[in-house]
Amino acid sequence: MNYSRDFRDKGLSTLGDSLVNFIYSIALSGYTGKPTGGRVPNASLAIALERAGLRHLVPPRTDKHGKGDIAEAIMAYAWLEGVITIEECVRILIENFEEDVLHPYRRKEALGKAFGELLKVVKDRLSL
Amino acid sequence: MNYSRDFRDKGLSTLGDSLVNFIYSIALSGYTGKPTGGRVPNASLAIALERAGLRHLVPPRTDKHGKGDIAEAIMAYAWLEGVITIEECVRILIENFEEDVLHPYRRKEALGKAFGELLKVVKDRLSL
Repeated sequence: MNYSRDFRDKGLSTLGDSLVNFIYSIALSGYTGKPTGGRVPNASLAIALERAGLRHLVPPRTDKHGKGDIAEAIMAYAWLEGVITIEECVRILIENFEEDVLHPYRRKEALGKAFGELLKVVKDRLSL
Repeated sequence: MNYSRDFRDKGLSTLGDSLVNFIYSIALSGYTGKPTGGRVPNASLAIALERAGLRHLVPPRTDKHGKGDIAEAIMAYAWLEGVITIEECVRILIENFEEDVLHPYRRKEALGKAFGELLKVVKDRLSL
């Protein structure tokens, strides 16, 4: 498959979108003990980028949606490069989930925290 | 994880939604040779159910969206039960993709065909 280390690539972020929602859905199913899932809000991915210290990968005046795309592209790239597996992503998310991931208002922040821990691992392995 | 063989279960279809979009995105990336992806239309999943001979699992007067949910629940159940892996799903989809999966109008039908082949395998292994 042809791709480069360009986290503004639309294809990478599109593939990453489905990857991120899948690992989140498996992790939430594992955490709650029953099949469930959903989509990860862009706001959470934006928080995750900040928490992981990846702000230098975000161009100035990038909105929440654009930040989500960058986080998704990074995840897709890391997975395609084989530096992280689905199983490991799920494990890291579950380890960093807390009750608030099920809270209607506090959910975004709690997911940002868990995905931030995942992005820290990816950052380290890709030397970002 | 707690779940039963109930293909009308909302949790199974929610998990299945992210599974279906993920395998589709990887398969389309493999088929085109570059990272890409997207969401599988409910119309395609409805076609796939018909083609796989799974109409008996669909209650009368179920709309397209409801059919999509049932197909997604079946996929999630099969994956959770371990009768099929992500890798095998992707392989079956790519084998059954044709140029029309990239066509703006003919895409829905072409995806219905490929997912129909996947559901045939699952039907057989789960004795549906």
